[in-house]
Amino acid sequence: MFPIRNQKRNCTDTDKIQHFLEHADTGFLGLSSEDVPYVIPLNFVWLNDAIYFHGADEGRKVTYIEKNPMACFTVSANYGTITSPIPAKTDTAYMSVIIEGSLLRVTDINEATEAMQVMLNKYVPGYYERSLGKSHLERYVSPLGSKTAIYKLNADSLSAKEKEVILDRMFYEGRTIHTDRA
Amino acid sequence: MFPIRNQKRNCTDTDKIQHFLEHADTGFLGLSSEDVPYVIPLNFVWLNDAIYFHGADEGRKVTYIEKNPMACFTVSANYGTITSPIPAKTDTAYMSVIIEGSLLRVTDINEATEAMQVMLNKYVPGYYERSLGKSHLERYVSPLGSKTAIYKLNADSLSAKEKEVILDRMFYEGRTIHTDRA
Repeated sequence: MFPIRNQKRNCTDTDKIQHFLEHADTGFLGLSSEDVPYVIPLNFVWLNDAIYFHGADEGRKVTYIEKNPMACFTVSANYGTITSPIPAKTDTAYMSVIIEGSLLRVTDINEATEAMQVMLNKYVPGYYERSLGKSHLERYVSPLGSKTAIYKLNADSLSAKEKEVILDRMFYEGRTIHTDRA
Repeated sequence: MFPIRNQKRNCTDTDKIQHFLEHADTGFLGLSSEDVPYVIPLNFVWLNDAIYFHGADEGRKVTYIEKNPMACFTVSANYGTITSPIPAKTDTAYMSVIIEGSLLRVTDINEATEAMQVMLNKYVPGYYERSLGKSHLERYVSPLGSKTAIYKLNADSLSAKEKEVILDRMFYEGRTIHTDRA
């Protein structure tokens, strides 16, 4: 019998997707201007069915967003390469989520404060004793003179894929998983 | 004095970039069709100043490439979030490389064999006793009836950035690095 049972499929487990997006470190924001694609790695949070991130309010990213707010945000985790000696077969286990929609600049102070608090909780949990004050966020949402902007990508569409690899017996050697049929 | 010295800069160390691209697990391919961006996570190899990857010769990715071969390929590593109690400051250390150019389908059997051998060496080192034979690759490069395609992205431009965070003293707690000024 074939020792590896692969399942490459669309993932519809909402809790699993939610957990994945809440814990993944880095997302990749895809933009396009005059059909020239651009992909930027970002820290982010997933909150109320939207991606939030912040960044300098200048540069190529902002120029692209101003020309075309359509975006694709991709998050992927690679769970390792799997090999099976019989038959000679290699494969990769992963989970990935692709979110598409339009980017908006966040101008509501309450929304900005909540998103940035969730970002602190995600990346530096328990580090700050006090919650973020709104006054701290005012410069992020001000239309004038702001050097930092908070953006939001509403998920008009979300697709998740995962490939689970179930082995008869597994041995982890570093990041490579080998099967052992002996 | 400020305890964290940040250096966010363009990286021009060719050896460092080379090593980074040769060892990173996952790259994110950005495509665009009619200004709709699309970002796909991929296994890949970096060889002779080009990105090589393979995949099914069907689906949205192929449709996009056929309409518009322009691509942006981004690879990023997150080395952890850094916090410093005085002053309250958090930051992320990372390295990222963005490669831009046009995608080509690889039709040369020797080039395809070399690229796929380098891919095996990267993802499953030492796993296959024998090198890949050209006959194994013929179906990948055949213009007729192929279900798998190998693509190449020549690096018309490459930009690398890194942010090194140098701390006075560092303590690793999970993925979070704290400074201790005591």
